[in-house]
Amino acid sequence: MNSFGMKLRFSTFGESHGKALGCVLDGLPAGLMIDEAFIQSELDRRKPGKSEFETARKEADKVEILSGVFEGKSTGTPIAMIIYNTNQKSKDYSNIKDVFRPGHADFTYFHKYGLRDYRGGGRSSARETAARVAAGAIAKLMLRELDIEVLSGISEVHGIHAKKYDYAHVNKSIIYALDAEVEEAQKATILEAKNRHDSVGGVSRVLIKGAPIGLGQPLYYKLDGVLADAMMGINAVKAVEIGDGVVSARALGSQNNDPLRANGFESNHAGGILGGISNGDDIVLNVYFKPTPSIFQEQHTITTENKEIDFSLKGRHDPCVAVRGTIVCEAMAALVIADMLLLNMGSSMSGLKRYYDFS
Amino acid sequence: MNSFGMKLRFSTFGESHGKALGCVLDGLPAGLMIDEAFIQSELDRRKPGKSEFETARKEADKVEILSGVFEGKSTGTPIAMIIYNTNQKSKDYSNIKDVFRPGHADFTYFHKYGLRDYRGGGRSSARETAARVAAGAIAKLMLRELDIEVLSGISEVHGIHAKKYDYAHVNKSIIYALDAEVEEAQKATILEAKNRHDSVGGVSRVLIKGAPIGLGQPLYYKLDGVLADAMMGINAVKAVEIGDGVVSARALGSQNNDPLRANGFESNHAGGILGGISNGDDIVLNVYFKPTPSIFQEQHTITTENKEIDFSLKGRHDPCVAVRGTIVCEAMAALVIADMLLLNMGSSMSGLKRYYDFS
Amino acid sequence: MNSFGMKLRFSTFGESHGKALGCVLDGLPAGLMIDEAFIQSELDRRKPGKSEFETARKEADKVEILSGVFEGKSTGTPIAMIIYNTNQKSKDYSNIKDVFRPGHADFTYFHKYGLRDYRGGGRSSARETAARVAAGAIAKLMLRELDIEVLSGISEVHGIHAKKYDYAHVNKSIIYALDAEVEEAQKATILEAKNRHDSVGGVSRVLIKGAPIGLGQPLYYKLDGVLADAMMGINAVKAVEIGDGVVSARALGSQNNDPLRANGFESNHAGGILGGISNGDDIVLNVYFKPTPSIFQEQHTITTENKEIDFSLKGRHDPCVAVRGTIVCEAMAALVIADMLLLNMGSSMSGLKRYYDFS
Amino acid sequence: MNSFGMKLRFSTFGESHGKALGCVLDGLPAGLMIDEAFIQSELDRRKPGKSEFETARKEADKVEILSGVFEGKSTGTPIAMIIYNTNQKSKDYSNIKDVFRPGHADFTYFHKYGLRDYRGGGRSSARETAARVAAGAIAKLMLRELDIEVLSGISEVHGIHAKKYDYAHVNKSIIYALDAEVEEAQKATILEAKNRHDSVGGVSRVLIKGAPIGLGQPLYYKLDGVLADAMMGINAVKAVEIGDGVVSARALGSQNNDPLRANGFESNHAGGILGGISNGDDIVLNVYFKPTPSIFQEQHTITTENKEIDFSLKGRHDPCVAVRGTIVCEAMAALVIADMLLLNMGSSMSGLKRYYDFS
Repeated sequence: MNSFGMKLRFSTFGESHGKALGCVLDGLPAGLMIDEAFIQSELDRRKPGKSEFETARKEADKVEILSGVFEGKSTGTPIAMIIYNTNQKSKDYSNIKDVFRPGHADFTYFHKYGLRDYRGGGRSSARETAARVAAGAIAKLMLRELDIEVLSGISEVHGIHAKKYDYAHVNKSIIYALDAEVEEAQKATILEAKNRHDSVGGVSRVLIKGAPIGLGQPLYYKLDGVLADAMMGINAVKAVEIGDGVVSARALGSQNNDPLRANGFESNHAGGILGGISNGDDIVLNVYFKPTPSIFQEQHTITTENKEIDFSLKGRHDPCVAVRGTIVCEAMAALVIADMLLLNMGSSMSGLKRYYDFS
Repeated sequence: MNSFGMKLRFSTFGESHGKALGCVLDGLPAGLMIDEAFIQSELDRRKPGKSEFETARKEADKVEILSGVFEGKSTGTPIAMIIYNTNQKSKDYSNIKDVFRPGHADFTYFHKYGLRDYRGGGRSSARETAARVAAGAIAKLMLRELDIEVLSGISEVHGIHAKKYDYAHVNKSIIYALDAEVEEAQKATILEAKNRHDSVGGVSRVLIKGAPIGLGQPLYYKLDGVLADAMMGINAVKAVEIGDGVVSARALGSQNNDPLRANGFESNHAGGILGGISNGDDIVLNVYFKPTPSIFQEQHTITTENKEIDFSLKGRHDPCVAVRGTIVCEAMAALVIADMLLLNMGSSMSGLKRYYDFS
Repeated sequence: MNSFGMKLRFSTFGESHGKALGCVLDGLPAGLMIDEAFIQSELDRRKPGKSEFETARKEADKVEILSGVFEGKSTGTPIAMIIYNTNQKSKDYSNIKDVFRPGHADFTYFHKYGLRDYRGGGRSSARETAARVAAGAIAKLMLRELDIEVLSGISEVHGIHAKKYDYAHVNKSIIYALDAEVEEAQKATILEAKNRHDSVGGVSRVLIKGAPIGLGQPLYYKLDGVLADAMMGINAVKAVEIGDGVVSARALGSQNNDPLRANGFESNHAGGILGGISNGDDIVLNVYFKPTPSIFQEQHTITTENKEIDFSLKGRHDPCVAVRGTIVCEAMAALVIADMLLLNMGSSMSGLKRYYDFS
Repeated sequence: MNSFGMKLRFSTFGESHGKALGCVLDGLPAGLMIDEAFIQSELDRRKPGKSEFETARKEADKVEILSGVFEGKSTGTPIAMIIYNTNQKSKDYSNIKDVFRPGHADFTYFHKYGLRDYRGGGRSSARETAARVAAGAIAKLMLRELDIEVLSGISEVHGIHAKKYDYAHVNKSIIYALDAEVEEAQKATILEAKNRHDSVGGVSRVLIKGAPIGLGQPLYYKLDGVLADAMMGINAVKAVEIGDGVVSARALGSQNNDPLRANGFESNHAGGILGGISNGDDIVLNVYFKPTPSIFQEQHTITTENKEIDFSLKGRHDPCVAVRGTIVCEAMAALVIADMLLLNMGSSMSGLKRYYDFS
């Protein structure tokens, strides 16, 4: 239950304030050049403490590969990666030991398991997503070999929308904004909330370019269904759209269908997926993040003994989790696409025979 | 890949114009009274041809149980159910044999598999969802034993919103509307589109009442992630929200958190799920359906030989797939909850010991 | 839990005396010619009542394909197959309604599930293996396209060993004997046991020819491990050997290793598998069947109320289940190999790139 | 593919001469006391270099827990464990860089993946089984809470059989012998082979005491089938028997059936499993290990360029892998039983209702 993917499958472990986080990536084809610097650079994009728009917790998030790579290449065996925690301040959390923070998983973990690692949310902390980013970086290396690219950026913060989606701008922006023109307003609303000890929600837009036609295993491992699971499973995500999403539900069929011409589709309302299978066009997702539940205003809550209290949280938190969350969306999208590429290989007898006749 | 669920798993088979559809439900606990009349009544809610708001194809959708039930009770072995197709008009489809209908899976199935059963969309037809409803009905019977209820209704059609969510009204409404006051306007917009040979989108709202705290297996079989997969995998669905969903992403943390009191949560922005685990409150989902891609206006498309043509579809189709789709959402939600109940049983040593000490 | 295989997965349903048995085969590549006559001929090899060496229950075992095949070819969607029961004599079983037959699953099913379908063993009856043979026949059709052959025969009955393994003889023998010279003695021992109202055990030897190097997914979906599971899961099987098996454990390393030369291995003690992966040589298995537990002598047993009784079974049973069991071994072996062929396709980047560069 | 188990699932990583080995154990119920000293003691039983009957490679096999344990108890989240390699002599292996050792997985890994980590067999080395023993130790801690015990010992070495099975003697014996009276002869045959630069095979007998009735998920996750997979997947295993195994196939039904009396079975030919489900009696397995393929005599083999050579291996190896292998059998058996206990919890509605009514 801590694993994701069918043929390319990763498993993660670790808690926010335990010794280490990590992941095991299984099912990767042998012979892929493993560019460790690239993996680290992806972790650096997600790591905390880089600016005032992020939590003050500083973690180097240095990743170490323990297995599965020999002479720089994947061997087809599991790649284990480990990231040691270095900046734990578990004492910060002694005040939440017996308290359920509103909007957090404290309450549900406690009741499901009968006990909980309260330090920084333990396993439920978004810190776990570092492990996903490490796995996702390797998926990206695999996709690169097939000229498939996974991009993302922040399209919306607290209701302030991007007017254009400029993926080239994203890595120039400290908040991974897609639109330089609204970026300052988006930043301002984050800081304003932060100063009021509050937080804001936001939206990540994910773009997958170059995916071949045919990815997705109907009817219950569809590309859109699995992407929805992958995204909804990221901390703080509350809605996922494919293509026009919510807007589709308000449209007419004559507006929403994408007409076909000999060189491709005339529009892309579908977001690159038809019947749960990629259609060769750009795959487009919108991922909606709620505001960080960790705010520093007084809130109603209860203790593990069911006693009502008014509670003010202390600690270090992102004022807008969508910002770093977009890097996690990219990682998950890359992992899904890589998995689907592998699963798709057995779709037809002609492909099977071509594969085995050669070898 | 045609199976869903981990511990309670169903597999479906069959095409729109083949001999039969069916499903195999595996992992159901033994000793459940199997009320066949209830299963049929659920299929009757989804079956086509009941009104002008639905396709004119008439199918009795009579379900027959082939296995897994003995003297009226489940035996713990797979329950196979079969629904014979009776009203195939495959000839209706000869005109689409070599044409990709815009907005349909024709194009992607053809390219993925190298051939396709073009009759009514074959496997990609929403007709397959009858099998899900049959499986879902049994899941509902199981949930009923634990006082868990899964409800749904249409909250929105072509932008016309329900102002209240009255689940008691749903079964009185031919379009499963949640709000009697907007129902007539919703019906009118469907018929208007239909008369213009067009179609409209809509939204299903799903409510799960009585689910215990603790359902959902983090971090990669979370309740919200699996529900998102289950819903997004339904034909024509393009977006899924949990609780406030999209609205959350525009809110402040101080607005969006649900404060806790001794007798429960003071609000339910979270839609009953925290950290991927049910929190004991109502579970709420919104499921967005695009307009039916089958419209009867002329559209640009191509043939399987990549020749451009202007194409006018003939046949029988729902002008708003959300209407019957909501019954499928219910079924899928029931299956997810039932699966999660079973998976949750091993969460703690105290539960394990209590279970085995008794037996 | 009623499914087997990872990428090519079949699920079976049905009980010995229910309406029907069947299976759903999922994950088969599209474009395979589905030779229904061949599927039926495989079922005919397994079907009961063909001779005095088998149960007197006569079943036509006519298989009907319900889905997944269009214009004679697989479409990549699930192939459902159904076999109606026609010769149920459920009344034969009223005498075992409250009694646990020694050596049978009656006792364990009753205690696991709290109730049981006692008619002919219900789901635990070897009759279910008809569904495996149907699925296995399709796997064989797929393997045939890659020039892989799965053969089997009876090597031993009640301690009487074949001295040679002549797979060409098998289909000439009513007991599927591998050695014409010991066949009469093997038949005689079966009839002798039968006449004494007893039963005998036997051994099936399975041979897979033409499998490419590389099948098997280490370390926990190894070819030998999965074959062992597949065989041990067949009714009445109590031991499985790969290659020299038990004999290996008594050998020296210098005897048991298979030396390599440029054109292949000099011996095949390993049975074609090294490190859980096929090595290109013949794959060889021995599968040990216990004697049929259904015997007609008086035996000690208890009732469902835990009352001790002396019990004499009535009914119709095979005096040596290994005979028809060997056909099931073949089917299971074919399904495992077909699954492994599909899983193996993602083993290397060079294979992945070759696959996608072409398409 | 490097994971095992359905509900309690472990994944392993690491190579013989890489940085570290490890495993991630997922699905363990929360609240189990994690006795680290016990885990280490199990690893100590398996670790190499303890006597002349084992390889001379010395490894401390110190295990470190990285996650999933809080204040001494399991939290329901993944338990990652790591074992650093300390005594790699990779140079020992430079001579096999381009050579396929007979009886080893070198040949199959090279052809499956197109490259291989040749140092000590890389991933295919039995060194990986240390990770299984760590996971198995935790499974044993869980089983202990339910009074279930998993024992094993060496019953046979190079044809020298134990005459009795004395599990109390095992931990007094350096070769884990079950019978003190044949132990010296067994030791002598190992040393004799070793001195001739050869190796011998052996047999492990596994006994599971106290398992409740009902473990095993028919029809394709049967207890015997999964045990067979678990055992056959251990390095060097070539045959697996349940109960009387091979002997059953030579018996009459009247000999092999286990009669039932009010207080249990009168015999246990079945090895505690009927219809793939535990029957409450002792579960008994025999696991057959081939002789270590690493011998120091000259052998025929080929290079990766398919050149024929006569090859003499150097290095450090166990003269009888069954000896330490028996500890791995125990671990795998414990993991299977623990998984089955969890899976079995949803078998009946009465169990389900009892579970949820309480909580």
